[in-house]
Amino acid sequence: MPSMRYVAIVMALIALGLDGIVLPGASAMERDKLLSDPGVYGTFAAFQIDDEWRRLDQKTRQAHLSALKGVVERHKDKLAIDTYLLRGLSDHADFLFRLHSTDLKDNQQFLVDVLATPFGQYLSSQTIFNGMSKKANYVPGFPDQMKADLKVPSDSGTYVAVIPIRKDADWWMLPQDKRQAMMQEHTEAALPYHKTVKRKLYHSTGLDDFDFITYFETARPEDLHSLILALSKVKEAHHNKRFGHPTLVGTIRSLDQLIEVFGQ
Amino acid sequence: MPSMRYVAIVMALIALGLDGIVLPGASAMERDKLLSDPGVYGTFAAFQIDDEWRRLDQKTRQAHLSALKGVVERHKDKLAIDTYLLRGLSDHADFLFRLHSTDLKDNQQFLVDVLATPFGQYLSSQTIFNGMSKKANYVPGFPDQMKADLKVPSDSGTYVAVIPIRKDADWWMLPQDKRQAMMQEHTEAALPYHKTVKRKLYHSTGLDDFDFITYFETARPEDLHSLILALSKVKEAHHNKRFGHPTLVGTIRSLDQLIEVFGQ
Amino acid sequence: MPSMRYVAIVMALIALGLDGIVLPGASAMERDKLLSDPGVYGTFAAFQIDDEWRRLDQKTRQAHLSALKGVVERHKDKLAIDTYLLRGLSDHADFLFRLHSTDLKDNQQFLVDVLATPFGQYLSSQTIFNGMSKKANYVPGFPDQMKADLKVPSDSGTYVAVIPIRKDADWWMLPQDKRQAMMQEHTEAALPYHKTVKRKLYHSTGLDDFDFITYFETARPEDLHSLILALSKVKEAHHNKRFGHPTLVGTIRSLDQLIEVFGQ
Amino acid sequence: MPSMRYVAIVMALIALGLDGIVLPGASAMERDKLLSDPGVYGTFAAFQIDDEWRRLDQKTRQAHLSALKGVVERHKDKLAIDTYLLRGLSDHADFLFRLHSTDLKDNQQFLVDVLATPFGQYLSSQTIFNGMSKKANYVPGFPDQMKADLKVPSDSGTYVAVIPIRKDADWWMLPQDKRQAMMQEHTEAALPYHKTVKRKLYHSTGLDDFDFITYFETARPEDLHSLILALSKVKEAHHNKRFGHPTLVGTIRSLDQLIEVFGQ
Amino acid sequence: MPSMRYVAIVMALIALGLDGIVLPGASAMERDKLLSDPGVYGTFAAFQIDDEWRRLDQKTRQAHLSALKGVVERHKDKLAIDTYLLRGLSDHADFLFRLHSTDLKDNQQFLVDVLATPFGQYLSSQTIFNGMSKKANYVPGFPDQMKADLKVPSDSGTYVAVIPIRKDADWWMLPQDKRQAMMQEHTEAALPYHKTVKRKLYHSTGLDDFDFITYFETARPEDLHSLILALSKVKEAHHNKRFGHPTLVGTIRSLDQLIEVFGQ
Repeated sequence: MPSMRYVAIVMALIALGLDGIVLPGASAMERDKLLSDPGVYGTFAAFQIDDEWRRLDQKTRQAHLSALKGVVERHKDKLAIDTYLLRGLSDHADFLFRLHSTDLKDNQQFLVDVLATPFGQYLSSQTIFNGMSKKANYVPGFPDQMKADLKVPSDSGTYVAVIPIRKDADWWMLPQDKRQAMMQEHTEAALPYHKTVKRKLYHSTGLDDFDFITYFETARPEDLHSLILALSKVKEAHHNKRFGHPTLVGTIRSLDQLIEVFGQ
Repeated sequence: MPSMRYVAIVMALIALGLDGIVLPGASAMERDKLLSDPGVYGTFAAFQIDDEWRRLDQKTRQAHLSALKGVVERHKDKLAIDTYLLRGLSDHADFLFRLHSTDLKDNQQFLVDVLATPFGQYLSSQTIFNGMSKKANYVPGFPDQMKADLKVPSDSGTYVAVIPIRKDADWWMLPQDKRQAMMQEHTEAALPYHKTVKRKLYHSTGLDDFDFITYFETARPEDLHSLILALSKVKEAHHNKRFGHPTLVGTIRSLDQLIEVFGQ
Repeated sequence: MPSMRYVAIVMALIALGLDGIVLPGASAMERDKLLSDPGVYGTFAAFQIDDEWRRLDQKTRQAHLSALKGVVERHKDKLAIDTYLLRGLSDHADFLFRLHSTDLKDNQQFLVDVLATPFGQYLSSQTIFNGMSKKANYVPGFPDQMKADLKVPSDSGTYVAVIPIRKDADWWMLPQDKRQAMMQEHTEAALPYHKTVKRKLYHSTGLDDFDFITYFETARPEDLHSLILALSKVKEAHHNKRFGHPTLVGTIRSLDQLIEVFGQ
Repeated sequence: MPSMRYVAIVMALIALGLDGIVLPGASAMERDKLLSDPGVYGTFAAFQIDDEWRRLDQKTRQAHLSALKGVVERHKDKLAIDTYLLRGLSDHADFLFRLHSTDLKDNQQFLVDVLATPFGQYLSSQTIFNGMSKKANYVPGFPDQMKADLKVPSDSGTYVAVIPIRKDADWWMLPQDKRQAMMQEHTEAALPYHKTVKRKLYHSTGLDDFDFITYFETARPEDLHSLILALSKVKEAHHNKRFGHPTLVGTIRSLDQLIEVFGQ
Repeated sequence: MPSMRYVAIVMALIALGLDGIVLPGASAMERDKLLSDPGVYGTFAAFQIDDEWRRLDQKTRQAHLSALKGVVERHKDKLAIDTYLLRGLSDHADFLFRLHSTDLKDNQQFLVDVLATPFGQYLSSQTIFNGMSKKANYVPGFPDQMKADLKVPSDSGTYVAVIPIRKDADWWMLPQDKRQAMMQEHTEAALPYHKTVKRKLYHSTGLDDFDFITYFETARPEDLHSLILALSKVKEAHHNKRFGHPTLVGTIRSLDQLIEVFGQ
C-alpha cells in the first residue's frame, strides 16, 4: 500500500528532523522567471539506479533519500529543479532532473552534490543534455493572429517527453527568410495542439551533441503523438538529421513522490 | 523434469497462500476491448535478468517470483498483461511484458511495482516501446473485397515478433492519396498471410524513437518470414528508415510458465 | 598438458556417471535431414562467459560442465547441435551453438535449459540469429552445367564464419529475372571456391534483424577470404545494406573439446 | 560545507607530508611554449570513476587522491597538465585531463602512472583523443586586417568544450585555394566571438578516429553556443562528416578542486 | 621508481624458476619469414584488464604475470608474438597482441591459453581483427622507380597505429586498371613517408568485418599523421566506407615491459 509506505517515509524524515521542508525549487516568482526568461541554462540529467541500491534495506534507503532532500533544499534558491519518473516508460533510465539557472555552473554543482550523497553512490549518469533559452527567432515575423494564438497559455499535465534534435548542414545554410517560412509552416501545424501540449525549446548547439532540446508536457499523450506527427509532415522536418535517440518519456513527480518510489 | 519442478513451485505458492490466483490480466471482456479499441496505450518492456538471480537458491527465487504474481494480480483490473519468453530467440533480453491500458500511467505504474519486488532487484530494463492503437488510417479507402478479407479473424500461435519501424521524412510529406495507394499495395501483399499471422499496429511517433511498433503472433514462423518478405517488396518499404534494431522474437508464455522457467 | 587435463575431466565425468554418452546431436540420419531439408529452423547463439566463471576452482567448473552435457544429451533427439569455439578469433564471444530443428521452439527450449544449468549462470547471450532453410530460389533457373557444378559436395574444415546480411529496399523491389541474373553472376563468382568452402544459407527476414545468415566451413581460411572477396565484386553486392557486424569467426569443436577449454 | 571539507583534506595531505606542493603543470614559461608551439602533442583523457570508489570511506579516498597528486608532481616538468570537471555537464564521464608534451609517449606514461595509483584502480577510460598542434594552414593567406584581429588575445573562462571533428572525403580532395576560401569564410564567422571564446585546434588524423579536436574555453557559454552556431552556417560545415559524438563539456578545476569534489 | 619495481619482478620470476627465458617470439629467422611472407595469418587482439586485477596485491599479480610468460614461451616456436601498450593512448583497451602464424588456429590457441592463465581471468576481449598477408596486388604494375623506392627499408619506432578499413561496393566493382591507377596515386602520396613510417597490410575480407587491417610503426607520430592525411587526399580514399572506428594507437613494449606496467 503506497500510502502506508509514504507515511512510514515521512515519519522517518520527521525523525531525521527534515519535516516541514517545502520542496522543490526556487520561490514561485524566481521559478517563473527562470522558466520564461531568455538566457537561462537548462540541464536535463537522466540517471539509472544501480541494482545494489535495490538490495539495501528500506531504512537505509530512506535515510539516504532524506540526504538527497537536503541537497535539493540547499540549491533551491539558485535553481529551478523539476523531477520526473522515467522508469517504466524509458529504458536504461529511472528518473530525470530538469534544472534551470542563470549560470550553467550552478546546474553542474547541484548534480555534483547529488552524486556526493549516499544515494548518489548508486547512480549512473545515462544522458545529459545542456541547452539555453533564447528570444524567439521566428515568431516576430509571424502574422498577428498566429502571434496571438501563441500567447494563449498551454495546459500542463502528467506526461513529459524530451526529444533532442540535430539539424542537417543544409538547414543552417538556408537564408533566414526560407527558414522563417518553414518555421511558420511548422508552427501552423503545431497550433491545434498548442492548448493541450505545453512546449519549451532549448538551444544546445555547442553545449552538447544536439542543436535543440525540445520539451513537452501534456495530460494527453495522444495529443503529444498527434503534434509530433503533424510536425513530421512539414518541410522543416526534412532537415532533422537526428530526432530523438534518445527520446526520454516519463511522468512529472515531486521529489517526495520519487522518494516514495525509490524508497520502497 | 519440468513438470515436477512445476509442482514444486505451485506447492510453494500454495504454502505462500497464493493458490487459486487466476492470472494474468483483466476480465475477458475488458481485455478484448483493450486489445481492439482505438485510443488504448500499449507498452512493450523487455527485461534482462542479472546473473546474480541465477545464483540464488531455488526456494528464494520461487518466493520472489510469487511476489511478482501478487503485483500482476493487483494490476489486472486496469491492465491487459501479456507475457513472453524472449530468452533463446532474442539476445540481451529474457522476457517481455506487453501492457494495454486506457491510461499510459497505468502501464508505467505496473512496471514500477514490478521493479519494486524482490525479483525486480535483479532486472535490467533493456527495451521499452510505447505506442497507441488508432482507427485504421487507410482501410476505409480500400476496395470492399479487401475490407471483407481483413475482417476474417487471424489465428494466433506460440510465436511472437515485435518490430519497431521509423519512416523517412519523405513518407510523411507524401499526399494522403499517394500513401493510401501504397498502403493498399502493402495490404495486398500481406493478405495471403492474414489468416495465419495475427498482427497489431501501435502508433508511437512522439512516444518513443519510432513511428510504429508492429506486433505479430503466429503458429507458423515460416509465414511470419514470408509476410515480412512480401512487405519488403512493395514501394512503401522504401520509406522505412529503420526496420527492427531491435527485432524482439519470442514465444507466448503465461506468467506461471515464465515463473517455471526463471524459478528453475 | 591438455591431454592430462582431458583425462582428469573424463574421469570426473565417469565419477558422475556420465561416461559412455555419445555427444552431440541427433542420429546421423536425422542430422543429415535437418542439415539438408528445406523448412528447418536454424538458431545461432553466441555466448560470453563471465569472469566469475574463470575464478571458480577447476573441480566445480568440471561438475558444472558435465551438467551441460546432460542437457545436450536430453535434447539430441530433436535437435542437431553444433558447437564452435569463437574465443581468440571473435571479440566479445567465447563459443557458439548452431541449432537445427523442425520447430523453432525446440531451439529456444534447448538454450533455456542450457541457461538453467549451473554453467548457464555464468553465460551472457551476446548474439542470436534465427533463420530457416528454404528451397533454392534461383538455382532452378541456372544453366545445367552450373547446376551440376553445384551438386559436387564441398569439403568441410575446422574454420567457420557466420556473416549476417541485410539487403537494401531496391533489391527486394527488383523483378525476379533481374535478381535471377545477378544471383547467377554471384554463383559464377563463388564456384571456384565451391569445393573448398562449404556454405549454408539461412533466410531470416522477420525472424531477426537480418535477411540472410550465411554460414561457411573451410579448412582454408584463405579460400574463405577469396570467396567473400569475389562475392564483393558482383553487382548483387551493391544491394548489401549491411554485411557482417557482427561477423562471427571461430573453429569447429566438439562439446568435449569446448568442455576441455572452459574446464581448464 | 565544502570549505570545511577542503580544510580537512589539506590537513590530511599535510599529515601525509604533501603540503607545499605547487600543482599542476610545467613551469609557467614551459607551459606557455607547450600551449602555443607547433609540433606539440595533446592528449585528452576522460575518465569515469567506478561506484566502488564512492563507497570507500573519506579517509581512504583522501589518501588515494594524495597519491594522485604525487604522480602529477612527478610528471610536471615534462608535461602541461590541465584538469576539468565533466561530471554534471557530460554523461558517462567524471573528469578530464588535457596533456601537452613534445613527446606523445610522455602523455601516455602520465596516464599509465595515474592508473597505477590506488585511485587509478577505480577509473575507467571513457574517451581518449590524441592530436598535435601545427602551424596555421590558412591564416597566412588571410587579409591583413583578419590576421590582426586574430592576434588579439582571447579571454579564458570557467567553461570548456571539446568537440572532435571528422571531415568528409570531398573536403580533403578540394584544391587548397577552395579550402582557403572556405576557411576564410569560417574565420569571418568566428571573429565576433574571438575575444570571449578561447580556441585551440589539434590535428588528429591518424592519431585517433577524428581529423581535428577542437577545444574551447569561455566565461560565456552563450557565446560558445553562438560561435558554434555561426560556424554551422558556412559552407565548410557541409564537409563535417561527424561533429562531436562525443562533445565533452565541463568546467576548469585545479587538481585540488577535483580532489575536493572526489574526496567528498 | 620503475627500475626498482622491475628488479623486484625479475627477482620474483627467478624465484619462480622462470629466469633465462628469452622472450618473445619465434627465432629471428622464422619471425622474419612470418612478417614478410604472403599467406601468413595475422591476428590483432586488444584486451582490457578488469578493475579487480588492480585490486590484487603486487605479489599475486607478479605470480600471475609470470604464468603469462610461460604461455608465450610455449607458443613461441609457432608464432611471432608482438606486444603493445595501448593504455593512455586508446580508450577501452590496455594492451594489444599482434600474432603471426601460418595457421590461423595457432593464433586462436595462443589467445585461448592466455585467457586460461590466472591473469587471463581478469581480461576482457575488446577488439579482435584477423587478416592475412598476400602478394602485392598493384605493385607489379607500378613504374620501376616507384618499385625501387618501395624497396628501401622503412624505419621502425616506438609508436604503433592499427586502422581497419572497409571499402565501399563501388571500389570492388571497379575494373582492375582503374584500381591500379588509384593505388598508384595512393602510393605516390605515401612515398614521402616511406622511410619514417613502416607499414604492413593485412587482407581481412571474410575474416572479420573489415577489408583491410593497416598497421603502422614509427618514431615520428607527426609523420604518421602526415601520411594518413596525404592518403585522405587521393581518389581511392573516396571508397573508404569505414576508416578506423576503432583506431588502435599505442607503443611497442616487450612482454617484460608490459609485465612491469601491469605488475605495478
